[in-house]
Amino acid sequence: MGVIATSDQLATARAARGDYRAGRAVPTSGVAAGLTQANLIAVPADWAFETLLYAQRNPKPCPVLEVIERGQVESVLAPGSDIRTDIGRYRIWRDGELASEVTDATDAWDEHRDLVAFLIGCSFTFETGLVDAGIPIRHQELGRNVPMYRTNIDCTPAGRLRGEMVVSMRPIPAGRVADAVQISGRTPAVHGAPVHIGDPSSLGIADLSRPDFGDAPEVREGEIPVFWACGVTPQAAIMASRPPFAVTHAPGYMFITDVPDAEYIV
Amino acid sequence: MGVIATSDQLATARAARGDYRAGRAVPTSGVAAGLTQANLIAVPADWAFETLLYAQRNPKPCPVLEVIERGQVESVLAPGSDIRTDIGRYRIWRDGELASEVTDATDAWDEHRDLVAFLIGCSFTFETGLVDAGIPIRHQELGRNVPMYRTNIDCTPAGRLRGEMVVSMRPIPAGRVADAVQISGRTPAVHGAPVHIGDPSSLGIADLSRPDFGDAPEVREGEIPVFWACGVTPQAAIMASRPPFAVTHAPGYMFITDVPDAEYIV
Repeated sequence: MGVIATSDQLATARAARGDYRAGRAVPTSGVAAGLTQANLIAVPADWAFETLLYAQRNPKPCPVLEVIERGQVESVLAPGSDIRTDIGRYRIWRDGELASEVTDATDAWDEHRDLVAFLIGCSFTFETGLVDAGIPIRHQELGRNVPMYRTNIDCTPAGRLRGEMVVSMRPIPAGRVADAVQISGRTPAVHGAPVHIGDPSSLGIADLSRPDFGDAPEVREGEIPVFWACGVTPQAAIMASRPPFAVTHAPGYMFITDVPDAEYIV
Repeated sequence: MGVIATSDQLATARAARGDYRAGRAVPTSGVAAGLTQANLIAVPADWAFETLLYAQRNPKPCPVLEVIERGQVESVLAPGSDIRTDIGRYRIWRDGELASEVTDATDAWDEHRDLVAFLIGCSFTFETGLVDAGIPIRHQELGRNVPMYRTNIDCTPAGRLRGEMVVSMRPIPAGRVADAVQISGRTPAVHGAPVHIGDPSSLGIADLSRPDFGDAPEVREGEIPVFWACGVTPQAAIMASRPPFAVTHAPGYMFITDVPDAEYIV
């Protein structure tokens, strides 16, 4: 649609990427408000087709915003960026196991020079619209990371890749749940409407207070847990499918782009 | 969304695929009304990632409805179908040149056993909505193929693939153009809103009466030429990029699925 970021927004985004490049590591919810954040998964070229196909077949959890081809490290969504350094915290995966977390992934790109990087949409994009509509975002208010859960929903496999859907959860006042559905539904390119509302157990979530990723939630009286497809889903696919090598962001530590959230509203 | 086709629709779709499988070859505009039709491009596995990436980077002309992996020939969008036979007319491409047109592509799949097939959304899907709104579809009325044109709009390249956007054109009464934009805009997964309205020359189209694909249009007094991104765009990429081998449908001779058009309305 050609929505343009303000110079203040761009300065904030560049400063944040610069901080992360220098080694700072904080969750990015609420950082550079109004600009789109993205999940990262990078795999060796041999796995790139299946990763892109997995995303195409599972567009709600895995909406592809950009593919950075082998040999490239700059995102077109953030000119001047370096995908190896500009995320606060990375995860290095070997044979489906989390091998380490690092604040600089340059060594990983040196080790595998054929890495293809996928930037996947993030639910933080529609949080802007929710906040603008007066719907509270609890984890932002508390300065915490959003809670994320593995579910019993199988994604559609693609070649060697399979795994379950990961969801993020936001407690929403019961009277605003319908608004939250409609507002997030206007951004189908970044997870869109919720995949589930109100019943954690039917997603296979035994204990809402113990998320698989991120921080514990605080669900208050009169609030309903609302679940959105989450861009951490590729990490569940890594665990289930065990590719020899992969790099991802650490959940909640996103790549900040220069693209306004409004760009993804239909 | 889980919209279900009626048994009459499904019977019509299966009968049409059966006719094409038996060798019948007619343009499919208006056939099995209300069910989604798709463009085809199939390439050797070595070109599959770039083809999928080209589609991801150019979603208006190349919205991917399904990828049929190597070794598979049945579309999940049409159970019981065979992608090698169930299109009325195929094009076989060698080194970017149109080598032949056939009504059965089984030999092509035998020659290249690693073909990966992509089904791409078709503007016929939103024609249903236009007709329902009382907007005339001239090429349907005349029993002709929709006119399609190569343009001067470059698609975003992906690896070895590049090429210009192809558009389809429908003459729309001036008073209904805004309606046509809004109705087609509700199907972003199948080309969505027009890419251009009213000025062929700015698209590099010198003579509207001589389309590059399909049949000549008939634009009447008071009608505006409206241009939509077209799923023949991958064929322009084949011509420009010269992969060693490819199979496509012949323009206008689409693959008919069992999926209601309404499934793609947001």
